Amino acid sequence: MIKAAVIGASGYTGAELIRLISGHPQAEVSMATSRTYAGQKVSDLYPELFGIIDLKYTEYSRSNAAKADIVFVALPHGEAMTVVAELFGEGPRIIDISGDLRLADAVEYEKWYGQKHVKPELLNEAVYGLPELYAKQIAGAAVVSNPGCYPTSVLLALAPALKATMIKPDSIVISSLSGISGAGRQANETTHFSARSDSVTAYKAGGVHQHIPEMERYLSEAAASPVKVSFTPHLGPFSRGIYSTVYADIDKTVEDSEVRETFVTFYKTAPFVKIMPVGEMPEMKAVLGSNYCHLGVAVDTRTSRLTVCSAIDNLVKGAAGQAIQNMNIMLGLPEETGLQAIGLWP
Amino acid sequence: MIKAAVIGASGYTGAELIRLISGHPQAEVSMATSRTYAGQKVSDLYPELFGIIDLKYTEYSRSNAAKADIVFVALPHGEAMTVVAELFGEGPRIIDISGDLRLADAVEYEKWYGQKHVKPELLNEAVYGLPELYAKQIAGAAVVSNPGCYPTSVLLALAPALKATMIKPDSIVISSLSGISGAGRQANETTHFSARSDSVTAYKAGGVHQHIPEMERYLSEAAASPVKVSFTPHLGPFSRGIYSTVYADIDKTVEDSEVRETFVTFYKTAPFVKIMPVGEMPEMKAVLGSNYCHLGVAVDTRTSRLTVCSAIDNLVKGAAGQAIQNMNIMLGLPEETGLQAIGLWP
Amino acid sequence: MIKAAVIGASGYTGAELIRLISGHPQAEVSMATSRTYAGQKVSDLYPELFGIIDLKYTEYSRSNAAKADIVFVALPHGEAMTVVAELFGEGPRIIDISGDLRLADAVEYEKWYGQKHVKPELLNEAVYGLPELYAKQIAGAAVVSNPGCYPTSVLLALAPALKATMIKPDSIVISSLSGISGAGRQANETTHFSARSDSVTAYKAGGVHQHIPEMERYLSEAAASPVKVSFTPHLGPFSRGIYSTVYADIDKTVEDSEVRETFVTFYKTAPFVKIMPVGEMPEMKAVLGSNYCHLGVAVDTRTSRLTVCSAIDNLVKGAAGQAIQNMNIMLGLPEETGLQAIGLWP
Amino acid sequence: MIKAAVIGASGYTGAELIRLISGHPQAEVSMATSRTYAGQKVSDLYPELFGIIDLKYTEYSRSNAAKADIVFVALPHGEAMTVVAELFGEGPRIIDISGDLRLADAVEYEKWYGQKHVKPELLNEAVYGLPELYAKQIAGAAVVSNPGCYPTSVLLALAPALKATMIKPDSIVISSLSGISGAGRQANETTHFSARSDSVTAYKAGGVHQHIPEMERYLSEAAASPVKVSFTPHLGPFSRGIYSTVYADIDKTVEDSEVRETFVTFYKTAPFVKIMPVGEMPEMKAVLGSNYCHLGVAVDTRTSRLTVCSAIDNLVKGAAGQAIQNMNIMLGLPEETGLQAIGLWP
Repeated sequence: MIKAAVIGASGYTGAELIRLISGHPQAEVSMATSRTYAGQKVSDLYPELFGIIDLKYTEYSRSNAAKADIVFVALPHGEAMTVVAELFGEGPRIIDISGDLRLADAVEYEKWYGQKHVKPELLNEAVYGLPELYAKQIAGAAVVSNPGCYPTSVLLALAPALKATMIKPDSIVISSLSGISGAGRQANETTHFSARSDSVTAYKAGGVHQHIPEMERYLSEAAASPVKVSFTPHLGPFSRGIYSTVYADIDKTVEDSEVRETFVTFYKTAPFVKIMPVGEMPEMKAVLGSNYCHLGVAVDTRTSRLTVCSAIDNLVKGAAGQAIQNMNIMLGLPEETGLQAIGLWP
Repeated sequence: MIKAAVIGASGYTGAELIRLISGHPQAEVSMATSRTYAGQKVSDLYPELFGIIDLKYTEYSRSNAAKADIVFVALPHGEAMTVVAELFGEGPRIIDISGDLRLADAVEYEKWYGQKHVKPELLNEAVYGLPELYAKQIAGAAVVSNPGCYPTSVLLALAPALKATMIKPDSIVISSLSGISGAGRQANETTHFSARSDSVTAYKAGGVHQHIPEMERYLSEAAASPVKVSFTPHLGPFSRGIYSTVYADIDKTVEDSEVRETFVTFYKTAPFVKIMPVGEMPEMKAVLGSNYCHLGVAVDTRTSRLTVCSAIDNLVKGAAGQAIQNMNIMLGLPEETGLQAIGLWP
Repeated sequence: MIKAAVIGASGYTGAELIRLISGHPQAEVSMATSRTYAGQKVSDLYPELFGIIDLKYTEYSRSNAAKADIVFVALPHGEAMTVVAELFGEGPRIIDISGDLRLADAVEYEKWYGQKHVKPELLNEAVYGLPELYAKQIAGAAVVSNPGCYPTSVLLALAPALKATMIKPDSIVISSLSGISGAGRQANETTHFSARSDSVTAYKAGGVHQHIPEMERYLSEAAASPVKVSFTPHLGPFSRGIYSTVYADIDKTVEDSEVRETFVTFYKTAPFVKIMPVGEMPEMKAVLGSNYCHLGVAVDTRTSRLTVCSAIDNLVKGAAGQAIQNMNIMLGLPEETGLQAIGLWP
Repeated sequence: MIKAAVIGASGYTGAELIRLISGHPQAEVSMATSRTYAGQKVSDLYPELFGIIDLKYTEYSRSNAAKADIVFVALPHGEAMTVVAELFGEGPRIIDISGDLRLADAVEYEKWYGQKHVKPELLNEAVYGLPELYAKQIAGAAVVSNPGCYPTSVLLALAPALKATMIKPDSIVISSLSGISGAGRQANETTHFSARSDSVTAYKAGGVHQHIPEMERYLSEAAASPVKVSFTPHLGPFSRGIYSTVYADIDKTVEDSEVRETFVTFYKTAPFVKIMPVGEMPEMKAVLGSNYCHLGVAVDTRTSRLTVCSAIDNLVKGAAGQAIQNMNIMLGLPEETGLQAIGLWP
């Protein structure tokens, strides 16, 4: 069995890792750390595990973590990089789920994350963990930087069109709607049920969300030319899921079916990406609880713009599920191992 | 007391008219028609009225409707225009809430609504009932065409920037998220609770929603030049409300505060439009149950794009409330009469 | 205009009082106090008031509060009684919305509220503010103790049957389901959206909720004999509303219609209580945002038990609305003044 | 591989069977029938299966069904018994998920289901498929009658206390709250999102729900004496899940911990039933998507009543999951095979 350590296991991503690893036929959680909850059972925080997973949080220790085969770092950004640096080269392969290793350089990091990058040397080591684009590099990586939830939904929606030079790189507009679990386990005015039920709100509007440089870095790689995006995240009245609707100018007349074909071809070996038939758009609920991404495309010939809609579960394909997918690839297992759950409907 | 007839009163907009008129100090419902439910109490369909409003649905008759001071036509499009034509010039002022009288000509109507316009002569008579832009014309109108829910949210979000020639007319992208009540009272697979809870979906993507020509017509008037938009409507897991996020290229560098000031000035006499402080975006829930529209603006200087978010209750400001606001203006009452309910929070 | 002071105005009940008073034709908020938010606008906490109510929180001062005509004390229990004691006899009529003055004596209070009662002399002064049962006493009261949300829903459901000696006083079982707003504005693990969405949970099961002695006190008055109840509160995935289902053994064979008639007669002068037709049970949503209570009755002849279902908005009829209703009665206004909003449907 | 036929596969239970069987390591769907949708893909109705399960609905034929190893009959009651009768003795083991085979005799059936029982001879053949009580009989059964969703939640909550003669058989009161998926896939006024969101309603109150005789039959078996219950079902604003709160008089003083111990012992070999620690009650969300049942107990010593709360997913443990559990037992597989998914939280 693969020994998997989860560092920072009390948050939603950490708990989702535990849930998914517990269903993985070839892996087991060897440690789950939490500064705040050390000594307590994981199921004290996560009632769905009660009587099923009898695991306790422990304090993080470098030497114990180093005994694992794979380490998932699910700490907040700013904290993650220190732990990655400590464990780098010590034995385990590492998957960092924070934003600490996603950008190209320390200057960019400081600008968007509002703090100094203390381990800039890691930025060159980390491979970006979006398997649909970087599977080969992930397979051999010592450190994988797991993508952000919004970037996952957006990159999957745009990469095929950019690679096919179907859309103009400077014309991209993105509206994303996330469930409240994306705001984390922390209780505050924003995550209060009575504030969020029946409400929708945009936040960090005007191009200031820290996922923007991550999107632009990898969209630019896909386009092989610099891409800039306008991105507005929103919170919707549901716990899980991200629904992104992206718009871009197309260069020439193109039919819906041609665009769809391009996407189908692009993802023909990707087990988790499904392209809806022409005329249909994804239903977010269909992917919840699963590692799938549903995409739908539509061309507006009046305005010469392409619309792509993308639905994922932010905690699975947007975080813990994708991390497991990366682990599978790193360790030579079939990509889908332990990730075949289908979304719940109704 | 003003006698108000509601034609087609069994749908959500009809019921909302009854609710609002019952709280209006100077109006009363003189008739509420329904072909399907004639003879039944309105409260049989709408339990919130039980024991409070003791009104029965009746069959529509032209002669009875003609006795009203004001007639609200809340019929489906295609049916509304026939009734408007029958009552036009017969006495009552008319407010048509359907889409039948919102476009410039019969060709456009047929193209977007998929059926022949049978009363094209009415298209020139109808005044577009968006009070924040057309109050003067509404005051003298015989027939008001009440705006669609999406166009209301979008026009209020864009008119100030277009009038100030702050944005490029061909660059507008609109993502709107509507509550399920926007799909009407009809029970079907799409409106089933178990399909919609925890889900989001785009529909009529690719520039085919019938509200597009309505938006473009009045955005063009605001811009004094032709405007084309990319518009994607979505359904979200809530009953009431529309949240629209609109994007447009700006011509020159402009600060958030300057844009906000332009909006504040534009709406300084509009009692129902509120502009959020710089750095804040509307919370949809704050306007539910009310006739208010909350707007927020943010400039993305990296991409030279303006983002405006707009929140309304689709059944109030997006339909019945705006119709009452129009009635007030037409009949010389203060615009806010009977519409001062504040949104429910929490 | 009646000057109304709201002491402890930052919580949900305080905000609801402000919302309701702002729509009351004969009252205005003269002060709204908050220790934490003094100096801030109420609309900074409550976005639905933005641009509409330009009120700031102030520090509480006894002398200022004493200038009001009516004082609403919306402080947490334990704090409220001190303020009531300070203002008692100083001029204003007082409505205490906390649990501090609802029980018969200090011993009972300490047992259920887990703290000493510091002003036991007030317990005899306070009149219980359930207008459907105590309107006459409320009219002349110096201090009204506003009922708890659960007791309101339960007392209205049981009083007619107990007064008619239709049910056995020792046989009462109550299951209540409350919206999350009942847990207050405080953000914590329990009120987090992602914990509560799609969930239901019982809490304080086994007869330990502090509303039990309040229910039993006034149910016993209605029965003119001692009543004991089994009561289990639950939280449901919605913000507003309480749905209580109560069960009691009936003595003799009785028909649904006879029970309903008893209820209709009992409430024939009560403007806010509506009894559903035989065969129908209340829809909670129909009363949300309103001061109405909907009741439905059904006799199970197989088991000789009566079932009564009761729906209220916990923040309106269960708190602030009922407080306004009490104010109206105390000040000689029609009971319904400012409270005629109808529930929102859909 | 076990060949499983799903008869009546277009409803929610049918779809859930397909989802669960697709994740079962030793079974596969050999046919999925639907009169209405024959020829269409299952994923046309259930978008979560799109691109994953490439199965089409077919017309039911007896000869094809007879080739399966196990047949799940997920037809509406009234239709199911005819199909069971046709297939009985033809080869496959049968699990009937309808209510057709759950009652003791045809008279009872007609009284509660409002129609004649056309195959009364089957009533003696069918074994009641609640594995926690009847595993041994299920193992050898030719026909299993899968329990109703409400009875599952109620029987698991009460059986240990009744077997231990801890509670009085004539004192049982049950309040259950179900998600809307319990009302089935049919779109109508009751299942419309805008009617159900933020609402709660009781239905079939007064002891008329068809699950009552089923509960009483098997509660009586557990008690070894006749049991009668008062049962009120409710609909809550969520898609999946049933939360039942049951009350019963206890004979003698008993502590929470003693009751809990009785339950823990009773279920010590039951892999899917978990008893919450003393002082805690189940969170419904913790079991959604899973086959688990969470139970919590609390004794009210003031009123000498026991409260038990029970949470299940109505479509899994309350229908399709329990059917798979029965299949496993019938075919000699470990009970948990294919059913180890953990509930989603958050």
